[in-house]
Amino acid sequence: MARIALDAMGGDHAPMAPIAGALRALADLDPSHSIQLVGKTDVVRSELDSLLAGEMAHLAAHRDRLHMVEAPDVIDMHDRPSTAIRSKPKSSMIVGLRLQTAGQSDAFVSAGSTGAQMAASTVLFKLHPGLTRPAIGTVLPTARVPVVMIDSGANVDCSPEELVQFARLGSVYAEDVLGRDNPAVALLSIGEEPEKGNAAVKEAHQLLRHADLNFKGNVEGRDILAGGNQQGPVDVVVCDGFVGNVLLKFYESVAPLMFALLKKTGVDLRALERGFREFDYSEYGGAPLLGVKGVSVICHGKSSPRAIQNAIKVALRAVETRMDEHIGRRLGQTAASDA
Amino acid sequence: MARIALDAMGGDHAPMAPIAGALRALADLDPSHSIQLVGKTDVVRSELDSLLAGEMAHLAAHRDRLHMVEAPDVIDMHDRPSTAIRSKPKSSMIVGLRLQTAGQSDAFVSAGSTGAQMAASTVLFKLHPGLTRPAIGTVLPTARVPVVMIDSGANVDCSPEELVQFARLGSVYAEDVLGRDNPAVALLSIGEEPEKGNAAVKEAHQLLRHADLNFKGNVEGRDILAGGNQQGPVDVVVCDGFVGNVLLKFYESVAPLMFALLKKTGVDLRALERGFREFDYSEYGGAPLLGVKGVSVICHGKSSPRAIQNAIKVALRAVETRMDEHIGRRLGQTAASDA
Repeated sequence: MARIALDAMGGDHAPMAPIAGALRALADLDPSHSIQLVGKTDVVRSELDSLLAGEMAHLAAHRDRLHMVEAPDVIDMHDRPSTAIRSKPKSSMIVGLRLQTAGQSDAFVSAGSTGAQMAASTVLFKLHPGLTRPAIGTVLPTARVPVVMIDSGANVDCSPEELVQFARLGSVYAEDVLGRDNPAVALLSIGEEPEKGNAAVKEAHQLLRHADLNFKGNVEGRDILAGGNQQGPVDVVVCDGFVGNVLLKFYESVAPLMFALLKKTGVDLRALERGFREFDYSEYGGAPLLGVKGVSVICHGKSSPRAIQNAIKVALRAVETRMDEHIGRRLGQTAASDA
Repeated sequence: MARIALDAMGGDHAPMAPIAGALRALADLDPSHSIQLVGKTDVVRSELDSLLAGEMAHLAAHRDRLHMVEAPDVIDMHDRPSTAIRSKPKSSMIVGLRLQTAGQSDAFVSAGSTGAQMAASTVLFKLHPGLTRPAIGTVLPTARVPVVMIDSGANVDCSPEELVQFARLGSVYAEDVLGRDNPAVALLSIGEEPEKGNAAVKEAHQLLRHADLNFKGNVEGRDILAGGNQQGPVDVVVCDGFVGNVLLKFYESVAPLMFALLKKTGVDLRALERGFREFDYSEYGGAPLLGVKGVSVICHGKSSPRAIQNAIKVALRAVETRMDEHIGRRLGQTAASDA
């Protein structure tokens, strides 16, 4: 019985991708769930009509679980993220987030401005006590099972204590959304030895050894896509947001480049495309902003309908497992045991 | 007329790979050049005999340009890099480097312990004035032409001034070894805007704008393999060694993983192997340790004969372009213009 608010105006392919993604999600989910399409109602309705008259006609039965919520404004890339709440209070993002603080919705999903969504979610939902920043965990496909890389939300110049906070957030995320039991947490560094790394990482290593977490030590760059190192598998990889952002954007660029170069070799491209799709983490859906008291799922700006569909699933899973409360409880326990 | 000293005992595939690489290099280079094989002479000679009696018999004519230099000891992974000069003075690495300080050799190439080679080269050759650390620039294949990523030698916690030093070193390297005219230098960050990045990167951006370099601003993770961004092509990408190390090791792991997954799709693997080889930067040969007064080329531990052959070419190119003096001159000019 969850109500998921979706930013119908956010992302490079809006409103088509969010609306098509919503229809696909509804077809897939238990009929008790509904989706709130937040945006310019006339634009949203017209896009929906056009999709249902065409390629998505077979999904018309799900229309009554789509609800329109009017938001006349849109936050774009020129708006300063930190002031969007005040400058565009009637934007689809702010209206969508406020549905949740008003108790009218259970989760919010958007492919709009990541910076604005992070800032507005933090201000409107507030952080759980014990945290200084929210973080984003990105699920990366690996040779084993997917791992959570946290932070990939561009929190730069992180203190050792903040890296430990990311570890705690990532651990609950892996448990609740990915269903991992006692998730194995590792710290990204330039060697497996505790004395390898920059100053913040070396100190974080020592703190993590004594934190109440299933800490497996350091992993190196090569271990991420392997899903672990020689010591064993890993569920969560902790890094600061500068490193996380550079790595993710680098990773995104590898497959298209390889694809372009392999084209020249004359191999069967359709088979290759299937293989490469496994690496496209954007297809794995959105990432919840971790640490805020609420559910705010951030999607890649380039999200396809399939990515939106997956992000809605992630949001639903966060609602059903009460991940938000779980994070609050876990941080509360830590505070209590430290006292 | 260059004399290249080669660590015959360094690397995972030593002594085979260095010796086979040396033979291949000699076959390829002007006959005026010679190679000094530094190591346990009996082991080296026996491996050489065996190669020339077998698969490399056609290269026997080049044997007289290979000279043996005895070094009874080997630095291994258990030796502390910082003390190797004192603890193993008769190792192939230390003997090989000292040939150059004694004026008996023009360059040194090794696939042995990178840490020991960095430390020993710095102590024995000394740094050019104006530098606080040496750096390693790794040449990465891109969709355009290869770029130099510097530092990839694991200099962590770099100051803004050190990032500028890396930019200067990388610029001379791109000019001399890659033959780029007025190399375009960019700073790796999490956005193109000058105000994006961590504290050190933001300050380095401002310093680089006023440095006497062809500075093109920031690039993001996705721009590295593209060989530039929308503003244009880039020859040198500057980052601290933590980020550089994580990125490189991550990159190394991508091709094997993709290869393994694509295997399942049933495409022609031989064609794929050719395509993937283009991404194997280790095949591009060694990286000179930049900033020391001498030529010390660092190779990947896993170096194949072909990688060693390429590293010898890099060393020769550094000798022929007098890169070392060029770096000293360039840093001297900077010091003069700052005064």
